[in-house]
Amino acid sequence: MITLASDFGSLYPAAMRGVVRRTSDAELVDVSHDLPRGDPRAAAFWLRFVLSEFPPAVHCAVVDPGVGTDRAAIVVRAGDHAIVAPDNGLALPPARALAAATGTGPNDIDVFEINEGDPASTTFHGRDVFAPAAARVRENAWTDGTVDGDRLPTLGSLTATEDRVDLRFPEPLIERAPDGAVDAINGEVLAVDGFGNAITNVPGDVVDDRSHDRVRVNDAGPVPLVETFAAVPPGDRLVMLGSHGFLECDVNDGRGAEAFGLAAGDPVRLVFE
Amino acid sequence: MITLASDFGSLYPAAMRGVVRRTSDAELVDVSHDLPRGDPRAAAFWLRFVLSEFPPAVHCAVVDPGVGTDRAAIVVRAGDHAIVAPDNGLALPPARALAAATGTGPNDIDVFEINEGDPASTTFHGRDVFAPAAARVRENAWTDGTVDGDRLPTLGSLTATEDRVDLRFPEPLIERAPDGAVDAINGEVLAVDGFGNAITNVPGDVVDDRSHDRVRVNDAGPVPLVETFAAVPPGDRLVMLGSHGFLECDVNDGRGAEAFGLAAGDPVRLVFE
Amino acid sequence: MITLASDFGSLYPAAMRGVVRRTSDAELVDVSHDLPRGDPRAAAFWLRFVLSEFPPAVHCAVVDPGVGTDRAAIVVRAGDHAIVAPDNGLALPPARALAAATGTGPNDIDVFEINEGDPASTTFHGRDVFAPAAARVRENAWTDGTVDGDRLPTLGSLTATEDRVDLRFPEPLIERAPDGAVDAINGEVLAVDGFGNAITNVPGDVVDDRSHDRVRVNDAGPVPLVETFAAVPPGDRLVMLGSHGFLECDVNDGRGAEAFGLAAGDPVRLVFE
Repeated sequence: MITLASDFGSLYPAAMRGVVRRTSDAELVDVSHDLPRGDPRAAAFWLRFVLSEFPPAVHCAVVDPGVGTDRAAIVVRAGDHAIVAPDNGLALPPARALAAATGTGPNDIDVFEINEGDPASTTFHGRDVFAPAAARVRENAWTDGTVDGDRLPTLGSLTATEDRVDLRFPEPLIERAPDGAVDAINGEVLAVDGFGNAITNVPGDVVDDRSHDRVRVNDAGPVPLVETFAAVPPGDRLVMLGSHGFLECDVNDGRGAEAFGLAAGDPVRLVFE
Repeated sequence: MITLASDFGSLYPAAMRGVVRRTSDAELVDVSHDLPRGDPRAAAFWLRFVLSEFPPAVHCAVVDPGVGTDRAAIVVRAGDHAIVAPDNGLALPPARALAAATGTGPNDIDVFEINEGDPASTTFHGRDVFAPAAARVRENAWTDGTVDGDRLPTLGSLTATEDRVDLRFPEPLIERAPDGAVDAINGEVLAVDGFGNAITNVPGDVVDDRSHDRVRVNDAGPVPLVETFAAVPPGDRLVMLGSHGFLECDVNDGRGAEAFGLAAGDPVRLVFE
Repeated sequence: MITLASDFGSLYPAAMRGVVRRTSDAELVDVSHDLPRGDPRAAAFWLRFVLSEFPPAVHCAVVDPGVGTDRAAIVVRAGDHAIVAPDNGLALPPARALAAATGTGPNDIDVFEINEGDPASTTFHGRDVFAPAAARVRENAWTDGTVDGDRLPTLGSLTATEDRVDLRFPEPLIERAPDGAVDAINGEVLAVDGFGNAITNVPGDVVDDRSHDRVRVNDAGPVPLVETFAAVPPGDRLVMLGSHGFLECDVNDGRGAEAFGLAAGDPVRLVFE
């Protein structure tokens, strides 16, 4: 399987589908072509979330504001998966998740630089570099339903490298009471989804003890800490553990980002009551 | 074949694709992930329209404002098809259409409750409940290219039930002249499509006799009752039999809903001239 | 393979997928359903760009403002490909590109009219005419991985025709200095893409000699003539050879169409410095 993800919107991705199909009959699955535009960090958040749901595959992921510059193009083997992407940090967070999901640990990763040759354009490497590379990996380094890490180094178009751009999401700072209970957390909004939910970097297990039922967000009045949207009336604000595994600032049947005044990258302080 | 439909937009559905592919090699076809958000009734209208174009399949459909509450999750066998959906009315209108299309009548329907276990999240049952259930049905109750109704009750994760939420679209009220000709119809707008066409619940056969060529909509001035958009100049209003089988209030090369002042759920009175 | 392209947006295309699957198991690939709405000329530009990336296929393309009128429906064999489309000019520009890509020259084209019978609707021929015709071509005139031009005339539903609507893009007028160098070009904006890039009809090879490094667009102040977005600071304007093979008026990390005041169809005069 080859998955395709990008920030290209609706009209350009078909060129990538066509290019892959010229040299590979592998199943094509579109992840999304509405990744946050030109923002490898936010796009990496989404890819980390969604790619780890897939069985082993070659994932072609392109959010590439530096297209046409000398930034490298890379193939990252991550457990039984591979990610083909620009070397701007986009690939490593999902790669660690894929390696962890494979069961070989988040560091079971090898990185190869793609020897790009002379791409046909300086603006559409999704078509000219990444899609062809994904097809080559799938056709030449795939055995028994997984990426074959032993064959990747034998592909003439790839060179092993240690030198690549990494990107890590910030860790929240947790303030605890003398008895160890969580009092407050200083975190950050990692992404706002299409529903307007503001997804923070605060992992849900910090509130696993369920000892709190309200939380203040950035010093505003407290809102319920609940388990479902429907626990509050439509239009009301809430904080909840979302499907990404992080606390979210949401509104039932509304847009939490606007209601809380939060955007991706904003700091968020949660004080539990 | 497994089809996927939801109101999840662009970023979340890939998680459903990945989850299905972990346990099933069945073909995946996206119906749409832009179903009317949080509105099972309007979404059921679209599913009734579009699913009946498909050959037998397992349809995974998720518009689920009650996610995380105790609303049930169900599998509906409908003729040779199955629909996997939340028990909020979304599934029954398209199920009747699929059973009718199968040729066994609109009531050839069985409903099973999914024993959900303990889903991984309270917010994304598309990934945690419905996609896995659709894959299970496809892998364990599919014979000779159709859903195998005899095997559904044998799946340990399903329990037959009579107790489910139904949802029916309103019928229009037709006023006739003494000679039986249609004078006026009191109906409702069921949906507005992406072109702005306001689709009513008035079936097209009420005007089959073609004895009228103009119609007043909600007491506004009469507009032409025509058979094609191009029958009126660009920008002009019209009423026409649309592809769903219902009368629509449209504008040629424009947006009928705005021009007529109509939204989904609005009453619409048609007086024929 | 059958590809699907239209201006139908998100909710209607699934009906075409379902209809094809009733009679054909061929792979279905969505090109885009966000082609410029009701604009066969701009849509033809995009199809010419993207379809030529595909291996031989049957391409079902529907942008059809005249649906329900007596405009014909056609199948165009173009090299090893076929395009099924309304006869409004949409098919011929991409057909010439596909025939050229096949290697048999841009005029290796045959056109057949589809004998439509009596379509089920007057508004949705994507479902009622074009999708069924694409499936018939794929099932009955496909041999060894390409469209079989000898079998197309034997399909009862097709009649060879010479009478079809063509559509050609304007050629730019190039003004040259006595030594042959390009001084200025009078062209046109063919399309604005989802990033806001204003794509002209000026082929990139007119600036191949790289003797200029700035260009005035419609008498505004000069902007850099560069090879990558990243060659100018974010927010700055530029002119560049884009992935379609034409000069584009762009903004790095912004929308060129707005910054230059350009829309599809606008004249654009480029003066090189």
